[in-house]
Amino acid sequence: DGYKPVSTAAAVPMRRRRVVSVRAEAQAINPEIRKSEEKVVDSVEVAELAKPLTAYCRCWRSGTFPLCDGSHVKHNKATGDNVGPLLLKKPKQ
Amino acid sequence: DGYKPVSTAAAVPMRRRRVVSVRAEAQAINPEIRKSEEKVVDSVEVAELAKPLTAYCRCWRSGTFPLCDGSHVKHNKATGDNVGPLLLKKPKQ
Ligand code: FES
Ligand code: FES
Repeated sequence: DGYKPVSTAAAVPMRRRRVVSVRAEAQAINPEIRKSEEKVVDSVEVAELAKPLTAYCRCWRSGTFPLCDGSHVKHNKATGDNVGPLLLKKPKQ
Repeated sequence: DGYKPVSTAAAVPMRRRRVVSVRAEAQAINPEIRKSEEKVVDSVEVAELAKPLTAYCRCWRSGTFPLCDGSHVKHNKATGDNVGPLLLKKPKQ
């Protein structure tokens, strides 16, 4: 009767679980293209398009920006995103 | 002499500072435009452009996507980003 069992919970208190809330903050979508420019704007003289179809990047991951080089595929796979280029179509002459 | 002062630090131990490291994971850049589509691609028949200058969105925040409605300004301010539209220029006829 001298021995009184204690519950494990009382003897070895669980370390209190800290809930760390991390607010998802708005993030830049352009990691590295022309970061010295205040705003990256590009112009296309549509009369000067060389090919019937030209793809322009909207994922900010292209190595040939402002043109699309297909890098959106890797970005979409890595993030579950669904972005793709803007296609400029020129009529055949 | 029966009273022995203790340092506050000893009496109330500082809670150990937990360093929480949060890895920055690759993130989607399109929060809500046409998420039912596997890949958002748009085409422009450049011969059908109505105005001398048309701005196409590359920030994925426009309410008139694929056109730019100026929402890149708010995105840039909120995030420190530097993205802007693609301008399509049609020669005056
Ligand atoms: S590489 Fe950016 S949209 Fe294709
Ligand atoms: S609103 Fe997206 S680039 Fe202007």
